[in-house]
Amino acid sequence: MANPTAAILVIGDEILSGRTREGNAHFLAGELFARGIDLREVRIVADVESDIIAAVNALRVRYDHVFTSGGIGPTHDDITADAIARAFDVSISVNEEARAVMAERYDRLGIEFNEARLRMARIPQGATLIENAVSAAPGFSLDNVHVMAGVPEVFKAMVAVLMPRIPGGLPLTTASVRMNRAEGEVAASLTELAARYADLSLGSYPFLSDGKPGTHIVFRGADPARVAEAVSLWRAEWPDAV
Amino acid sequence: MANPTAAILVIGDEILSGRTREGNAHFLAGELFARGIDLREVRIVADVESDIIAAVNALRVRYDHVFTSGGIGPTHDDITADAIARAFDVSISVNEEARAVMAERYDRLGIEFNEARLRMARIPQGATLIENAVSAAPGFSLDNVHVMAGVPEVFKAMVAVLMPRIPGGLPLTTASVRMNRAEGEVAASLTELAARYADLSLGSYPFLSDGKPGTHIVFRGADPARVAEAVSLWRAEWPDAV
Repeated sequence: MANPTAAILVIGDEILSGRTREGNAHFLAGELFARGIDLREVRIVADVESDIIAAVNALRVRYDHVFTSGGIGPTHDDITADAIARAFDVSISVNEEARAVMAERYDRLGIEFNEARLRMARIPQGATLIENAVSAAPGFSLDNVHVMAGVPEVFKAMVAVLMPRIPGGLPLTTASVRMNRAEGEVAASLTELAARYADLSLGSYPFLSDGKPGTHIVFRGADPARVAEAVSLWRAEWPDAV
Repeated sequence: MANPTAAILVIGDEILSGRTREGNAHFLAGELFARGIDLREVRIVADVESDIIAAVNALRVRYDHVFTSGGIGPTHDDITADAIARAFDVSISVNEEARAVMAERYDRLGIEFNEARLRMARIPQGATLIENAVSAAPGFSLDNVHVMAGVPEVFKAMVAVLMPRIPGGLPLTTASVRMNRAEGEVAASLTELAARYADLSLGSYPFLSDGKPGTHIVFRGADPARVAEAVSLWRAEWPDAV
């Protein structure tokens, strides 16, 4: 059976203005890869309702899972929960379970449960909460869309709660070989090997180190023995591989 | 007149597998913002021809400019140039200007101009080259799509060549204030200010520092005087703003 597929949707003007370097998608990409979930696409859109709705609706029919990051805080520009409700055409209102969890934490820490914070308890009808061990205000899953916070510490805490609920696939085996040679020098040999090992994915990632060209060759596949075999053949052909 | 709009399309399995943290889009986002070009969307897709074609065709009709990163090297998984040619339904072949520039460099450095490297001289019909000061193999612009390399040093060199060719807009003025308070505490006050300054974009970006909540308030707008005025009002209301 094929592995489940996924997309990540990052919501936030601060990424598109260059102010903040996106990190949540990178973190989640590694988690999904390790669990055999095939991340096919990432999109970053602004805090604009129509853009969020269009992206969610395009991605949720195409992939098994959509993970979102950002836009579920207490301020006027946090519109993700409302946009998701509109994308699914369901109502949104204060969720009593969410309100209770937040009230418990705010009481304990002497934080005022004001109207802005109450906004964060608004959850679309039919959603399941994703607990937030850091600051209480939860994320939620609605059908195959999983809505999480943008603050990295909170995002990671929500991913930790969510992952065990999502069926994984067969994790790929990965091996990597570093070449102190330019990509153009090893390309023909790699193309030949890739044709012989069509069941594997062979990637080549050029880099510059102190101005000198190098290439990482990455071998990926479901069968560890086939990956090991391809790596051995490569090393036999290029004895100077690191 | 409204500022030009843009999207960035990043092509590469290595980003989606979590192996590499994307940095080119972040770099270009900052360059575009400084030039008054409004980045509206970023997409990251795999080295899959149909995915690249679908994304390019969706983005190039929607935005004034599309910038791509990745997939123009010498190996079998470098398929961006061919995908762009198919997206525009034009032919692709070795470009004599590109070949000459590469031959000159390879001659000078004693690098073999083999078949794999010749692949990098293949450019879609009607495109304009984007010079590559680092390693010669050029990118190209076809209509409003600008195709650049994924290696960060090469990407930056190509952006430096390309930017002066692209008409900019009116750069926004930005100011930022750091609050050692949780977002939920300042949210109502920010919503009120945002309503009074509807010509500005007021964003709030929560963070945790040593486990304590803080918030950056970012003010953006075309008119520097209006931005300064909104910042003054904010500071008057919150004298502990940093």
